[in-house]
Amino acid sequence: MILVLKPGSTRQELDHILDRVRQLGLRAHLSEGEQRTIIGLIGDETKLHGEPLAALPGVEQVLPILKPFKLASREFQRGDTVVMVGGVRVGGGFLAMIAGPCAVETESLLDEIAGAVKQAGANILRGGAFKPRTSPYSFQGLGQDGLRILEAVGQKHDMPVVTEVMDPRQVEMVSRHADMFQVGARNMQNFDLLRELGQTRKPVLLKRGMSATVKDLLMSAEYVLAEGNGNIVLCERGVRSFEDSTRNLLDLSAVPNIKGLSHLPIIADPSHATGRPDLIPAMSRAAIAAGSDGVHVEVHACPEEALSDGPQALLPSQYAAMMNEIRRVAKVMERSIDPPARARTM
Amino acid sequence: MILVLKPGSTRQELDHILDRVRQLGLRAHLSEGEQRTIIGLIGDETKLHGEPLAALPGVEQVLPILKPFKLASREFQRGDTVVMVGGVRVGGGFLAMIAGPCAVETESLLDEIAGAVKQAGANILRGGAFKPRTSPYSFQGLGQDGLRILEAVGQKHDMPVVTEVMDPRQVEMVSRHADMFQVGARNMQNFDLLRELGQTRKPVLLKRGMSATVKDLLMSAEYVLAEGNGNIVLCERGVRSFEDSTRNLLDLSAVPNIKGLSHLPIIADPSHATGRPDLIPAMSRAAIAAGSDGVHVEVHACPEEALSDGPQALLPSQYAAMMNEIRRVAKVMERSIDPPARARTM
Amino acid sequence: MILVLKPGSTRQELDHILDRVRQLGLRAHLSEGEQRTIIGLIGDETKLHGEPLAALPGVEQVLPILKPFKLASREFQRGDTVVMVGGVRVGGGFLAMIAGPCAVETESLLDEIAGAVKQAGANILRGGAFKPRTSPYSFQGLGQDGLRILEAVGQKHDMPVVTEVMDPRQVEMVSRHADMFQVGARNMQNFDLLRELGQTRKPVLLKRGMSATVKDLLMSAEYVLAEGNGNIVLCERGVRSFEDSTRNLLDLSAVPNIKGLSHLPIIADPSHATGRPDLIPAMSRAAIAAGSDGVHVEVHACPEEALSDGPQALLPSQYAAMMNEIRRVAKVMERSIDPPARARTM
Amino acid sequence: MILVLKPGSTRQELDHILDRVRQLGLRAHLSEGEQRTIIGLIGDETKLHGEPLAALPGVEQVLPILKPFKLASREFQRGDTVVMVGGVRVGGGFLAMIAGPCAVETESLLDEIAGAVKQAGANILRGGAFKPRTSPYSFQGLGQDGLRILEAVGQKHDMPVVTEVMDPRQVEMVSRHADMFQVGARNMQNFDLLRELGQTRKPVLLKRGMSATVKDLLMSAEYVLAEGNGNIVLCERGVRSFEDSTRNLLDLSAVPNIKGLSHLPIIADPSHATGRPDLIPAMSRAAIAAGSDGVHVEVHACPEEALSDGPQALLPSQYAAMMNEIRRVAKVMERSIDPPARARTM
Repeated sequence: MILVLKPGSTRQELDHILDRVRQLGLRAHLSEGEQRTIIGLIGDETKLHGEPLAALPGVEQVLPILKPFKLASREFQRGDTVVMVGGVRVGGGFLAMIAGPCAVETESLLDEIAGAVKQAGANILRGGAFKPRTSPYSFQGLGQDGLRILEAVGQKHDMPVVTEVMDPRQVEMVSRHADMFQVGARNMQNFDLLRELGQTRKPVLLKRGMSATVKDLLMSAEYVLAEGNGNIVLCERGVRSFEDSTRNLLDLSAVPNIKGLSHLPIIADPSHATGRPDLIPAMSRAAIAAGSDGVHVEVHACPEEALSDGPQALLPSQYAAMMNEIRRVAKVMERSIDPPARARTM
Repeated sequence: MILVLKPGSTRQELDHILDRVRQLGLRAHLSEGEQRTIIGLIGDETKLHGEPLAALPGVEQVLPILKPFKLASREFQRGDTVVMVGGVRVGGGFLAMIAGPCAVETESLLDEIAGAVKQAGANILRGGAFKPRTSPYSFQGLGQDGLRILEAVGQKHDMPVVTEVMDPRQVEMVSRHADMFQVGARNMQNFDLLRELGQTRKPVLLKRGMSATVKDLLMSAEYVLAEGNGNIVLCERGVRSFEDSTRNLLDLSAVPNIKGLSHLPIIADPSHATGRPDLIPAMSRAAIAAGSDGVHVEVHACPEEALSDGPQALLPSQYAAMMNEIRRVAKVMERSIDPPARARTM
Repeated sequence: MILVLKPGSTRQELDHILDRVRQLGLRAHLSEGEQRTIIGLIGDETKLHGEPLAALPGVEQVLPILKPFKLASREFQRGDTVVMVGGVRVGGGFLAMIAGPCAVETESLLDEIAGAVKQAGANILRGGAFKPRTSPYSFQGLGQDGLRILEAVGQKHDMPVVTEVMDPRQVEMVSRHADMFQVGARNMQNFDLLRELGQTRKPVLLKRGMSATVKDLLMSAEYVLAEGNGNIVLCERGVRSFEDSTRNLLDLSAVPNIKGLSHLPIIADPSHATGRPDLIPAMSRAAIAAGSDGVHVEVHACPEEALSDGPQALLPSQYAAMMNEIRRVAKVMERSIDPPARARTM
Repeated sequence: MILVLKPGSTRQELDHILDRVRQLGLRAHLSEGEQRTIIGLIGDETKLHGEPLAALPGVEQVLPILKPFKLASREFQRGDTVVMVGGVRVGGGFLAMIAGPCAVETESLLDEIAGAVKQAGANILRGGAFKPRTSPYSFQGLGQDGLRILEAVGQKHDMPVVTEVMDPRQVEMVSRHADMFQVGARNMQNFDLLRELGQTRKPVLLKRGMSATVKDLLMSAEYVLAEGNGNIVLCERGVRSFEDSTRNLLDLSAVPNIKGLSHLPIIADPSHATGRPDLIPAMSRAAIAAGSDGVHVEVHACPEEALSDGPQALLPSQYAAMMNEIRRVAKVMERSIDPPARARTM
């Protein structure tokens, strides 16, 4: 950490700052320039979390030089993490092809969709039982009934299943039915929920918040990691912007950016990011070409009757066509796609 | 709701759309223009929540014409809501002057701050016991001990107290110690938490999320209202933007904007919005001049030793100077400030 | 400037960096910490403009510590600049009350509006002759005819006039008719235009670009200052954001922020920022309370027939009511409003 | 266009609105719903440009249903436009591989870079002679000398050249030296410049502004088209966002989005968008996979000595490696890359 002092800072202020630095167990390295005095802090910077050095009189700026996340960083772990979702590998060259409806509606409908997406090449089935809806008057999901349907359909098709958890009180119940938890964009900084999931050993699909920086996302992963659960798959799903012809703005640069900073797998969700089925195939190809460890796509057999987010879903036939393109791009990128399997048999 | 059809839509698509509209219990009003066919839907639009009309073949756009919130709207209630926080009126011409440290640290420190801000004119005391911190390694708050200290200091100074609640499991405990719940920006769309708070009758200070539109904020208030709790004070606290010299961008236009749309009181929080003590007095004056029902400001007796957000806190003396200015602007705006009181005696 | 080296940087890279620093005429101050090596550069940092130190092998980050603008800074000039617009003082406690239609349409209409806004208390008349319209098919302004009308009406009412200039080739012509140039948001980084205006001595109203930071705005002012023209009034007029219920997001924190960084006056334009007449009076009051040196408001006698931006204009009667409020806030802020005058007679 | 009336609008207001509509030569189609009255306007909507219908008393909202651009639209021209840059085809399945330094510095340096990028597979050479720099103290380009160097080097290597034009007064001079004009992000809405370029027949590389929507970009293209120049290549180069680890946010969804709306070619510029050489190869691959008609990449033989934007440039060897990947993705996408040629010989 570097402290830059104000132009007119006094000797007394400087002495007070140096005292505080010593109290914190650090050494100060002073550089008196022509226009500014600079203090480099030497020692264990982790002691400084929460230390409001910017509030010291005479300090103009505090410039952090180390990254605030640790367990999530490439410096902590060089090699790629490979997360097992049921029997499907994600990361380290293996792609997660997650597909399914926004919400679980009925068993027969989910069964139809699962059969179709598996056939097309998906290896993980998704479906929401608890739905975070902007309006209290919208369909809120089937709750535990939805979880039971999802589990049954996953078993029937031998596909691992992922579903959203919104409340720490649901963790135990969701854990009994699903192979992977999803934390939605709106809950990326629901820290109590993250801690609760950190205490399980189930994989967590952690979606980037709509106003979260790449660093914020990695800090949220750090909450889960710090509790002992390293099975995290990150997901870029678009951020808020002024552009109004898409629902959000898919930040694909986050993919190589995070690959450089972290060992955790990262996938992309073009369905929620764009909200437009006509853009999903192109953005899925682009995601894989950018180095993404998979894509998360909403598929519905009858979008016009979907109870949630129908207009952004692909039809099963559109998904199958897209998967044909994805496979060609994946080959160029030298990526493999594990077949779906609830439990892995080597 | 208005449906705009695609230029090349067929007769068959149109018939299918009209069928769906009738199934939903609505009437369709058809306008065939030179370049587009438009269908106006007549009837109870609330039936359409979650209806994915945009997914119907042949539909180009769906244009909603009614606001998606109801109980929060001025159309539902003409007059301003006045929320009682302990014995302090907020809204309808009465200002909430909320002040205190970011986090409760020790009883003696909070006592000192409370005395100073009350003296300066604050009428509600704030202090965090559960802190949503970006890093798992930062100070996370004192938890229940913090709540006990906050309550004791509030009683000593006869000030109602407000504190953040982050987890539905904390609602009951926080309720026993505080006069008002705070929902932070990161939890504005934590819908399970909102529903839980809706089942109490305690006032809720609902902060706007960093990427929430004005409409999103009102939809979150609607979650609390729909459960039966009408005691909501909204809070503008800045949104994310590209400007990097302030922490967030305080959207003061949200104040008159929301005043037009809703009967709920709305206050501003320039501390979290700007993150800069040098800007807080000017933005507090501006908030009151814009019609805000109060301001929420962080004050700390020793910012350099604060365990959380010290650099953005005002000193008690700075707060007192600011309150002198606020009172002059409040007079121009014909607003009153109730004295602090735990319970109101008329 | 501070260079932070990469964790694994080599001795050879370090030596090369130190060589480059010496070539630039600067001294290097080395701090070898536990996790990072840091180099403070001592000497005249202005030599570094455009020096791509971040591209040196082994460098992880370059942290600038000085502000990139100089002539615009408070460090260069402590006291407030007061700009004379015709005979009207702006800055240093004097408010610019700029009002008029978006575009000059006819002489009789402009005459009517000018009479009304002068009566209400405006001291500078605005009106566009060259209009930067998003669509090539929209009304583009009357050009030189518009300038002649504006000048004539300004003379009749003894009001100084401000009008937009979009093209360096128009500078000379506009200069003959107007008392102040306006540079619109879309041209804030039209550097050839800024240089051309810097060579005149006429005041320039420089509007913040929709995606410009506060620092970017001051850098654009620096272009005008560097050519020798110090008569600049800055204008906050809203930035792009995801909020869709207002046209742009008025960043009032830019007012005290810029007051701290620069000696130049800064005013606010709530008309273009919000695009909504119902929000303009509240945001004008807020601007003055935040310390703004004036407000720029569009007024039209018949908004429904305006050729440009009618829906965001206030009626003359609404403007007069707003000015009554403004005067009360200005009094609290101890600001004066010079009467309109083309040339000042002391 | 659809007008939605306010809930309490009067009969008198309605009659006045219907009068205005008829004056404009349109027919009104009235739908009186349970909660709102809606008026559909039938006839030639282009008459409405600039008509401030939202200002009519009683009108709550104006909902446009047609796109505001015409010549740029897919509805106007079904098939893809193929732009000839010198002898290189761009669009319709042909990729522009534009590479070169940010600024032209010396002839020998440009010669070295040109040789290397041509060898690697680039087909158009770029280099700035007029540089729009945020600071007036940064290197501003060599001006006409730079143009002469660029032309000479382009001729030597038989590569067409593109360079930025910032001022309408430079158009004629740039035209004599370059094969393609570049309009930078800061000038996307410099409408006088666009009109001037529209009067030439040279190709224009039109970059998206940092706060421009996709629609805004197409409206700016419409300015050039409306003057008669159809040789436009659009360029996505990142928009402003809160993410601070990249310079801007590359919006790759703009590529398929614009492909749907317009017949014009669109390429991507990952250099300016990310500002980070480590992310450029991944984002270039992603751009091609998303359907982009090429990529625009900065390459410099010695980034640490570049006079402009060195830190974001690729080394020639990095560019060559990237081109190997690009060719494999281009093959999957069935795209061709014309060899460089100043004039095409069929």
